[in-house]
Amino acid sequence: MTETATEPPAGLATLTPLVSPRSIAVVGASDHPARIGGRILARLKETYRGEIFPVNSSRATVQDLPAHPDVSALPSPVDLAIVAAPGPAVPQIARDAAARGTGALLVLSAGFGEVGGEGRRAQDELAAIGAASGMRICGPNCIGIMNLTIGLRGVFSTLTDVPQETGNIGIVSQSGGFGMGMFETAQQSGLGVSYVLATGNEADVTCGEMVGHLVEQPDVEVIALFMEGVRKPGALLAAARRALELGKPVVAVRTGRSRVGARAAASHTGALSSADDVVSAAFESAGIVRVDGPAELVEYARMFSAGRRPAGRRLAVVTSSGGAGVLMADIAESAGLEMPSPAGRLADELGGLVPSFGSIGNPIDPTAQIVNDQSMLRELFTKVTAAPDYDMVAVAGAARGLGAALRETLQAGAESTDKPFAVWAGQPDVARDLTARGVTTCHDPNLLVGAMGAMADYRENRERLLGEPFHPRADAVPDDAAPPRTLAEHVSRRYLADAGIPVPDERIVAGAAEAASAATELGGKVVLKLSAEWLSHKSEHGAVRVGLTGPAEIEAARAELAALGERLRPAGAPAAAILMQRMAEPGLELVCGLFTDPTFGPVLTVGLGGTLVEITRDRRLALAPAGPAEAARLVRGLAGGRLVGAARGLTEEQAASVAEVLVRLGEVARRHPEIRELELNPLIVGPSGAVAVDALAVVAGDGPC
Amino acid sequence: MTETATEPPAGLATLTPLVSPRSIAVVGASDHPARIGGRILARLKETYRGEIFPVNSSRATVQDLPAHPDVSALPSPVDLAIVAAPGPAVPQIARDAAARGTGALLVLSAGFGEVGGEGRRAQDELAAIGAASGMRICGPNCIGIMNLTIGLRGVFSTLTDVPQETGNIGIVSQSGGFGMGMFETAQQSGLGVSYVLATGNEADVTCGEMVGHLVEQPDVEVIALFMEGVRKPGALLAAARRALELGKPVVAVRTGRSRVGARAAASHTGALSSADDVVSAAFESAGIVRVDGPAELVEYARMFSAGRRPAGRRLAVVTSSGGAGVLMADIAESAGLEMPSPAGRLADELGGLVPSFGSIGNPIDPTAQIVNDQSMLRELFTKVTAAPDYDMVAVAGAARGLGAALRETLQAGAESTDKPFAVWAGQPDVARDLTARGVTTCHDPNLLVGAMGAMADYRENRERLLGEPFHPRADAVPDDAAPPRTLAEHVSRRYLADAGIPVPDERIVAGAAEAASAATELGGKVVLKLSAEWLSHKSEHGAVRVGLTGPAEIEAARAELAALGERLRPAGAPAAAILMQRMAEPGLELVCGLFTDPTFGPVLTVGLGGTLVEITRDRRLALAPAGPAEAARLVRGLAGGRLVGAARGLTEEQAASVAEVLVRLGEVARRHPEIRELELNPLIVGPSGAVAVDALAVVAGDGPC
Repeated sequence: MTETATEPPAGLATLTPLVSPRSIAVVGASDHPARIGGRILARLKETYRGEIFPVNSSRATVQDLPAHPDVSALPSPVDLAIVAAPGPAVPQIARDAAARGTGALLVLSAGFGEVGGEGRRAQDELAAIGAASGMRICGPNCIGIMNLTIGLRGVFSTLTDVPQETGNIGIVSQSGGFGMGMFETAQQSGLGVSYVLATGNEADVTCGEMVGHLVEQPDVEVIALFMEGVRKPGALLAAARRALELGKPVVAVRTGRSRVGARAAASHTGALSSADDVVSAAFESAGIVRVDGPAELVEYARMFSAGRRPAGRRLAVVTSSGGAGVLMADIAESAGLEMPSPAGRLADELGGLVPSFGSIGNPIDPTAQIVNDQSMLRELFTKVTAAPDYDMVAVAGAARGLGAALRETLQAGAESTDKPFAVWAGQPDVARDLTARGVTTCHDPNLLVGAMGAMADYRENRERLLGEPFHPRADAVPDDAAPPRTLAEHVSRRYLADAGIPVPDERIVAGAAEAASAATELGGKVVLKLSAEWLSHKSEHGAVRVGLTGPAEIEAARAELAALGERLRPAGAPAAAILMQRMAEPGLELVCGLFTDPTFGPVLTVGLGGTLVEITRDRRLALAPAGPAEAARLVRGLAGGRLVGAARGLTEEQAASVAEVLVRLGEVARRHPEIRELELNPLIVGPSGAVAVDALAVVAGDGPC
Repeated sequence: MTETATEPPAGLATLTPLVSPRSIAVVGASDHPARIGGRILARLKETYRGEIFPVNSSRATVQDLPAHPDVSALPSPVDLAIVAAPGPAVPQIARDAAARGTGALLVLSAGFGEVGGEGRRAQDELAAIGAASGMRICGPNCIGIMNLTIGLRGVFSTLTDVPQETGNIGIVSQSGGFGMGMFETAQQSGLGVSYVLATGNEADVTCGEMVGHLVEQPDVEVIALFMEGVRKPGALLAAARRALELGKPVVAVRTGRSRVGARAAASHTGALSSADDVVSAAFESAGIVRVDGPAELVEYARMFSAGRRPAGRRLAVVTSSGGAGVLMADIAESAGLEMPSPAGRLADELGGLVPSFGSIGNPIDPTAQIVNDQSMLRELFTKVTAAPDYDMVAVAGAARGLGAALRETLQAGAESTDKPFAVWAGQPDVARDLTARGVTTCHDPNLLVGAMGAMADYRENRERLLGEPFHPRADAVPDDAAPPRTLAEHVSRRYLADAGIPVPDERIVAGAAEAASAATELGGKVVLKLSAEWLSHKSEHGAVRVGLTGPAEIEAARAELAALGERLRPAGAPAAAILMQRMAEPGLELVCGLFTDPTFGPVLTVGLGGTLVEITRDRRLALAPAGPAEAARLVRGLAGGRLVGAARGLTEEQAASVAEVLVRLGEVARRHPEIRELELNPLIVGPSGAVAVDALAVVAGDGPC
């Protein structure tokens, strides 16, 4: 792992004045706690442990602190200026702050990119001021940031009480409302959060950079991320890689996957939008744990924050409620976990402990006797957690109102092991008590077992990803100067042949004589097709003839295609070439490819082909390039994981040949940044492996030499 | 709808003494509140409004009430006897209770079917006593039942406080632990539940019967159901039909879908297990809303219990948090809801209300100005709920700590309409206050919007299902006397031809001359195949030759097949017939069929065919028979809803021809109860519709005449 380890990006230190400032100016400070500038200042006075400078043009003091008329008048440069001034005043404040040597600006004011027009221009101006001066700018249209390790509560949202607890979770959220909502949910259930960093419109500082900064903080072990658009994808992926190396999980909700959601996200954040499956693929390639909503985000973060990691996928469920046990077994299967029954020594031990009307299968059912016999349950936990049979333990239903004795036993169970050990506790008071005892709980069995599955996935993904080199990506994909153009099939195929991707033996045949001698050279059945830049849908035009044998059949087809080519050719276009290929062995038809996403750049795809591909839409994606393990994962993921090894599916060797094609396609992407799209459809996987019998490239700039 | 309306099943009245007893005997009554018989009695004394008779063989009084030595000695027959005695004593108690004219027995004791062997036999004995006497038996191994409308709290689980609130929700749960857990979750959040009916091992009374009983109670509007195995499927489906007719939604978790879960469920309840997709299909066909776990069960029940039903699928989201709005838009799309932007008059009205930096799209963003301007928000709600643009309204994030003024506005919004109106409220105190104001809330946006989608689905399903006749089903599928046997293709096909399902024109050809004249009659390309009871996998044996033309080719194939038939024929088996069919037009290959599920009986299936069917596993199921609308729903459900109308998919006419095949297959199932399996693979859907080119039937008993 060490040889692939990345360094913390140097630029992230520039976020220290923003996230951990030693001094703060509040621009727009007010005496009124109902006003944003008043609320922020009051909160700083209450708990912030650094220097505070109110800025107010018309007052000598604000909230009993000496005020300064503007940022330029500050007695010394501050680390952070929090701006709670009307939008139109902000650019000038930013210029003054930069001139005064301010480390960072946190702009709470709204009326920028999210309203378009003038606001958009003002936001661009802010970005330019930041870029020119080096002063980092967070926001605008941002709820603020909290760093409880220094008592900084720089947010304008209402807070129901003064948060004091800190813990090893950091929240990064483009949406401040969402981030603070998560924070309050975590607080209520005793889950420790130290940082809430909202980024708003991201004129400069992005979620990805915030993640990168938090990853380096020794007091942060888990990062919960909420984002709508992905700005600076390179920074996000680099941060995720560092997190992976340091073993700090990043759990993320990324919204905007729906048509309406994407439109709404674009309108209120102005961010670019990638197809949702590309975002998922990018997150997977980066080891980010993607979840569906706030409940999963909080509960998965809670599970990860306990710091325990399973060594495998084997779950023991302990419960005296048969119904709960069956429910959790169902969820475990959906989450890809295994639930083997206790075997060997453990089975013997449990047989001696559990009453005869209980169960020593899995779920393990110690029966309602646990109400009266805590020592039995305590011993049961010790045996189960110590046994090599299991990688993690979930306890269900046992906590319901059975008093402190049971909770002590659960605490003893959790303390008997460093394997993940979690309890389904539906009652908030029981959950809080168990949390205080250091026992991980969850109010919902679906989320609890789902999170355990996510932990097992995380471990496997981490191992696989760290075993392959990391390819840093640019923060922006360059705009094409000229419109991209389609290449002819035989030209497109050069990309493949150069990269060692198997293609059929092929000739361009100009006339009857050439066709006849080519057929003799190729031998067996051949395929004839037209190949031209202007002919993308050959089959629909009858421009592909397969399974041809014998001089007469071949020449007839050649002559027909030649005529067809002339008929189809647009005025002024070059003539189509006639290709003759040795016909591929029959096999399963897949589709493989490469395309350029506007945010993340080159992406690899593999899908189940055939005529139904557009209907089944079964395809997997990964950022390009991909290593062998990553490529194999894609292929294995097709058809719900049933493609490889199944009857009529792929053999291991065939699957490996497809994965090899994906790895080589990744190399093509690296060497040829001009490619916008490269589709191998079909890629026929026959007895001797994958062959790309058709190819279509779209390029911006020159094609392959 | 009236013509299809069913009657409340007469037998359900027998559950009245169990669920709404006027008098209760507690067998095994005790002075000790820690003992089950003590706890039950104490709770009855505290709140139950009927007569109470403690039964204890060694005491004159228990908890200050006069005790009776055994059930036979009761001064008068009681409606209900609750049995908290050791398992081995229960059968005699049941006999005595039946002899004394007891209406129903609730057996809390364990040690019956769930431990197998002797316990299984004791449970069967209980069932026999019930059947012989007419006394209904609930349990054994049952946590008990609660009917708060009469103060009955006959459960032995711990209760954290005395539940007093009642409401329009009834809980039916095989697992008492799960049922009581749900009840407590509902109580904590102010959701009114009147009944918790646990059924345990179901020696007699089943979940389905309990649902049937609750459906007829005027104070119940929503039923939340948790079940593991389905006993008496006929009763469940009849109850679900009544619920559908009365517009009382049944929301259900059914566990045991995983291999481990099914094994665990079978071991602790002893119930039969159907494939999970059959259970889902049965629930869909019955209009039961199936959910995945307790969180969905509670929250969907909460949403339905508000009694509001959407007229369509159009959702308005109102939020001043851009992030929350995008998130809810994503969930809405997953839930199949539409989020059109306000149009026409509503757009104008909102344009005059919402600040310029807000959004009058959908999500509708009234901006943070709602903090200071409740009247604007109030008017906004009035406009949005009154407009014909939307069928339901979800409000997000607005409730967070903004005080009572906002909650009053939300209440006014909810009161301004009878459309569904729900608020995402993450803080329990805010949620409770809104609930008390009559505003529906949910702590999780995924569940909130998911439940709204479920309401829209429910309305559509209800309309479709009530438009088709209800086919009552037996409670048990009869066991086959003889092992089922496979029929030859041409015999199997008679089922199809008789039912009017399109099959290819076909002849049995005994020799060369017959083949030649048959080929002339059929004309065009033909198919030759072997057909025999002992030949199920024809293609794998090369026993199907397609696309044959001309006398020479046809005769060569016929002769080869004849020889192949002799070579494959098992010793002593009859010779295979040689079939000649007119070759079907090329088209999309589906697979259609019929099979008998051990619980639910005949089931229809339709799947995407071709060589990849085993890998893609895309098939839809419904109980047979199915009406045209139900059949059409199955076909449309294939390929994630993308099959019909898509390029390379089916046209509307083709889809209708497949649905027609399913409807006719349902008729076949009704007329031929001997069929265990009937597979049409492939069903080729060409330009002129579906044709069943192959058929395979498995029957118990005689085949078609």
